[in-house]
Amino acid sequence: MYDRIYNFSAGPSMLPLPVLERARDELLNYGGSGMSVMEMSHRSKFFDDIIVDAEKLMREVMGIPDNYKVLFLQGGASLQFASVPMNLMKTGRADYAVTGQFSGKAYKEGQKYGDAHLAATTKDINFTRIPRQSELDIRPDADYFHICFNNTIFGTKWDYIPDTKGVPLVADMSSCILSEPVDVSKFALIYAGAQKNVAPAGLTIVIVREDMLRDELPATVPTVCSYKTMAEAGSMYNTPPCYPIYICKLVLEWIKDLGGLEEMKKINERKAAKLYACLDSSRMFNNPVSPESRSIMNVTFRAESDEINAKFVKESAAAGLQNLKGHRSVGGMRASIYNAMPEAGVDKLIKFIEDFEKANS
Amino acid sequence: MYDRIYNFSAGPSMLPLPVLERARDELLNYGGSGMSVMEMSHRSKFFDDIIVDAEKLMREVMGIPDNYKVLFLQGGASLQFASVPMNLMKTGRADYAVTGQFSGKAYKEGQKYGDAHLAATTKDINFTRIPRQSELDIRPDADYFHICFNNTIFGTKWDYIPDTKGVPLVADMSSCILSEPVDVSKFALIYAGAQKNVAPAGLTIVIVREDMLRDELPATVPTVCSYKTMAEAGSMYNTPPCYPIYICKLVLEWIKDLGGLEEMKKINERKAAKLYACLDSSRMFNNPVSPESRSIMNVTFRAESDEINAKFVKESAAAGLQNLKGHRSVGGMRASIYNAMPEAGVDKLIKFIEDFEKANS
Repeated sequence: MYDRIYNFSAGPSMLPLPVLERARDELLNYGGSGMSVMEMSHRSKFFDDIIVDAEKLMREVMGIPDNYKVLFLQGGASLQFASVPMNLMKTGRADYAVTGQFSGKAYKEGQKYGDAHLAATTKDINFTRIPRQSELDIRPDADYFHICFNNTIFGTKWDYIPDTKGVPLVADMSSCILSEPVDVSKFALIYAGAQKNVAPAGLTIVIVREDMLRDELPATVPTVCSYKTMAEAGSMYNTPPCYPIYICKLVLEWIKDLGGLEEMKKINERKAAKLYACLDSSRMFNNPVSPESRSIMNVTFRAESDEINAKFVKESAAAGLQNLKGHRSVGGMRASIYNAMPEAGVDKLIKFIEDFEKANS
Repeated sequence: MYDRIYNFSAGPSMLPLPVLERARDELLNYGGSGMSVMEMSHRSKFFDDIIVDAEKLMREVMGIPDNYKVLFLQGGASLQFASVPMNLMKTGRADYAVTGQFSGKAYKEGQKYGDAHLAATTKDINFTRIPRQSELDIRPDADYFHICFNNTIFGTKWDYIPDTKGVPLVADMSSCILSEPVDVSKFALIYAGAQKNVAPAGLTIVIVREDMLRDELPATVPTVCSYKTMAEAGSMYNTPPCYPIYICKLVLEWIKDLGGLEEMKKINERKAAKLYACLDSSRMFNNPVSPESRSIMNVTFRAESDEINAKFVKESAAAGLQNLKGHRSVGGMRASIYNAMPEAGVDKLIKFIEDFEKANS
């Protein structure tokens, strides 16, 4: 109908078709306002309704306790790599698990602000699994322990919430937020760039427990990076990224209509399970991740031959299965199957893998 | 046709109708890609063409010299209030002109990073004019001199480019960028939140002379706030605000098709001149700004009676002339007549002012 492709990009990535259709239909005139959402004052009643609804839906869908603030910010997860230590390092000590590229960047950025300690890593086995609880060397007096809950590039996910013995737990959930229920009360702070499961790029979600908000930050912290300032201003200390917030609201409505995160999880697990089953039974392709650490959002796979991998990427793209090339640091292929990837897209990919293997064996 | 209103909001504000129509038409499938621009990997060929075109058009339309970088960032002008001192304060001394609320915020933020000096202000006369060259107390050894080129709230504009005697000149052009030609070579750095004349909220344009880019910044500067890091990464150190960059490209195409900034200036001056003429001949309404400092983007006016002001705001909104209420710090009315406000909207406002005055005298 629209000649839409299946886009397996790691992010920005697919948005639900009904969300895009609605955005198109009201692009010139939102709700009888005579304006596009892109044109509205962020202080207008129309936009206020949108941001209030977005927050309410986020709280409802994720089950966020009342003693948490939900912030709609700019700058991406990369700015959070700095904002987290700028806001949360009280004593100047923080611990990090490095389980891939982005957690490595967060750790490196943390080192700029104080004594950032490597509490665990699986770098020696190329990040093919998540460290076990017994491997976590968390300092009891650390200001926080930082993890990346789903590792986009390596296709791994924390299959448990670490027990930090009271140290505040901070998680980058950029590539798995809204993919399944999560017990928010176990975290002191959750952040996520929106461009995978929430909205277009340019919006960052921060969910932060109120006791983590500090009055006195170092003078070198930009005012817009203060969680407390932003929480007190309802994310509107300055103009927020209004349009992505509107799309976020539509996406949350879509998830709610679908049956919420329990249902979303079922769909995502079904999609991932059949793709992993296909790879496990393949004699050409291999997924290197330990079964317990497998992501249900990002599925990596590769053939031994680089020639075959290149051929697969090229031919799959021609068949309408696009952006399957793995990250340059890993090679091979990666299928990002976020919430908005239809199950039919995964089915088509599985069929393509099977046919490709037959044709090239 | 779409029941669109005339939206006089100070920002976010109107976008050109042809831009919105095109965005709507290709929302589900951009250029045969089978994807929305909101769904595209920022590393894809499709998006690369968009950001490259946006930069090329910005350079062409504004006449930006080759020794300047054009950056597409997040965080708004408010983050720039911190990024400018973080990047440009080498000796720790910087000078500011305070000509309204936002320049005041920039000055206050600058004080967090070093010795920020008030080089000029017109606060004592409620910011009703821009300081003259002779009133500027710029220290010869300051790292930069910062001005806000157009003051949204008070409706003033610098009618000259200050002679800084070699001190790098930095300008916040959030509410006037692309409204008329400007000699970029006179500035060391120009920045602008996009949500008035460029694109939806969530994009910040930075135009910076290459010799201002520094390698060694203090450790406390977030990596994404380093101009040099962003310049070297072509604004893609992390995921940029892709959709506003796409709209920015469409807006620049619209300006170019119109005849560029010379023509844009003629239209804007014509719109502003007739509105000021109406106010100058009114016995009910008054614009308090000194004629030489009048903005062609934001036109403030008020009646003596608060009751009349409130009635005007209410009745004009009902007539499809919306968001004319002045900023809470000033009161009265403000008509923001950015590039995308059609001349017909200004004509309708003038007619409304005249009719209102007759009916209420």
